[in-house]
Amino acid sequence: MCQNCDYTIHGAQHHFGWDNSIAPAERVEPGAQIAFHCMDSSAGQLGPSSTVEDVKALDFGKINPVSGPIHVEGAEPGDALKITIDSFAPREAEGSAWGWTANIPGFGLLADQFTDPALTIWKYDAKTLQPTLFGEHGRVPLKPFCGTIGNALAEPGMHSIVPPRRVGGNLDIRDLAAGTVLYLPVEVAGALFSVGDTHAAQGDGEVCGTAIESPMDAVLTIDLVKDAQLKFPRFTTPGPVTRHLDAKGYEVTTGIGPDLMSASRDAVAGMVDHLCATRQMAAVDAYMLVSTCGDLRISEIVDQPNWVVSFYFPRCVFE
Amino acid sequence: MCQNCDYTIHGAQHHFGWDNSIAPAERVEPGAQIAFHCMDSSAGQLGPSSTVEDVKALDFGKINPVSGPIHVEGAEPGDALKITIDSFAPREAEGSAWGWTANIPGFGLLADQFTDPALTIWKYDAKTLQPTLFGEHGRVPLKPFCGTIGNALAEPGMHSIVPPRRVGGNLDIRDLAAGTVLYLPVEVAGALFSVGDTHAAQGDGEVCGTAIESPMDAVLTIDLVKDAQLKFPRFTTPGPVTRHLDAKGYEVTTGIGPDLMSASRDAVAGMVDHLCATRQMAAVDAYMLVSTCGDLRISEIVDQPNWVVSFYFPRCVFE
Repeated sequence: MCQNCDYTIHGAQHHFGWDNSIAPAERVEPGAQIAFHCMDSSAGQLGPSSTVEDVKALDFGKINPVSGPIHVEGAEPGDALKITIDSFAPREAEGSAWGWTANIPGFGLLADQFTDPALTIWKYDAKTLQPTLFGEHGRVPLKPFCGTIGNALAEPGMHSIVPPRRVGGNLDIRDLAAGTVLYLPVEVAGALFSVGDTHAAQGDGEVCGTAIESPMDAVLTIDLVKDAQLKFPRFTTPGPVTRHLDAKGYEVTTGIGPDLMSASRDAVAGMVDHLCATRQMAAVDAYMLVSTCGDLRISEIVDQPNWVVSFYFPRCVFE
Repeated sequence: MCQNCDYTIHGAQHHFGWDNSIAPAERVEPGAQIAFHCMDSSAGQLGPSSTVEDVKALDFGKINPVSGPIHVEGAEPGDALKITIDSFAPREAEGSAWGWTANIPGFGLLADQFTDPALTIWKYDAKTLQPTLFGEHGRVPLKPFCGTIGNALAEPGMHSIVPPRRVGGNLDIRDLAAGTVLYLPVEVAGALFSVGDTHAAQGDGEVCGTAIESPMDAVLTIDLVKDAQLKFPRFTTPGPVTRHLDAKGYEVTTGIGPDLMSASRDAVAGMVDHLCATRQMAAVDAYMLVSTCGDLRISEIVDQPNWVVSFYFPRCVFE
């Protein structure tokens, strides 16, 4: 996929969790372009023929492998990595690009309401990236991105891969797609950058806890900004971010109250109810579907004491 | 503006706060189209020639007047009003359509950081709605909508206009613009619907506490859905919602942590810092500007214990 890359990080060069004592997979100069062969977030435990039984058997010690780490020469605490996200190429298995979305008990915004495991397998065309079928219900537009992208923490020891932190990590920001330029704070010498958890599509929030989880090759150019003194990650998108979704408008539910988390839960639960009522979907199917394409927005956060969170579902999925 | 409206609610027919004992301004059958002459959210205390001294003198007993209430025949608790938002026509004063954005001490997401009053006056063309100048800094695209739209509460007595509730009210959802269809829960016989707080533009969050506050005429068609049993407001947009903003992409800052409110504050403060550093703006100017066009999104809400809130600033403002 990358004719001119300076380096390739192969699938076996991955690690679980963040630990600044992990030996670099590669040492590179600023400006290097690198192809990363990213596994899916189950590290291959799920495949295109998996069933819900495989979700029950998941080994959480092998969740969310990331490729790397990359030691960037000259990077020091206080600097930022400037990551230009060049391209994604989904990997095929059993003759097609594919992905999975699961409800994993105990994980997800409405984990208390969805206690049974569930699994959806998606198939799609890696070249055209045409919207992919969700069962018999609709089609979800695709926009590949990397869910986990970050640097090692200064704090020694092993840190869970699950939460994102100020150095990045499991950010799950769906606009970290091709063309975006991301700036990540550096906390250790060399930065020790890793990437993985590639997604074919996800809505803002990733509400059921998973996106369309797909193995992909990702090409990134890694540069260095000295003394950037960045508090949190920031990024620049080169153009519109939702035009693959927005042509037909949105169905929107809201949650209103003094707690943003409760309002978010109400907004998402309202959309699940709405899709069940209007599309005759099983609730868990609606929950998984909206995780791949519905967006959580904070409509207002100043009219005290009640805030409004809105959940936007793109009507193009059904129209 | 409305040749075929069934009713006109004039500027004097407004009230402050929600109280289900307020006598209806009009009684209408479902399906009625109504023109509302909406005052700005200062109820005329601010005008196109106002200065920051006028912000200091604001009488908060006269904040956010709403036009109405409208008694909808046949509406009962458990029903929903179906409000089709037909059109907006900004009112002119001193020869131009206009609006104001203020930092009001004690109000806004970063009230602790911005303790001094500030005021920006905007002028714009009511017919073309071309992007309007923010001082010498940039141009903000416009999309008029009603900030406050709701029904009376079942609970007797006077309730503050400031917080939105499940029956609507001060929702400040920037996509309640022309073409959108909004469904609002009914809690009292006749619904007792009112609308006001018209805005020429606002970002998701309304982070400084005010938008581009403009007096406008709003035309709405009010219908009734019996026994809708809606928990919170929901709405449908007829098409894309951000194409007036997104052509040049976005600058995005993030906040990451276990509390969505703190993460939102970090994301917005990060953008204020970024604009100050890159655009040589005063911090309070950046804070007011981003309130009119920057969007708060919840990028992920499942990677426990840390959530990611992102603040999207449209690059078209400067490019």
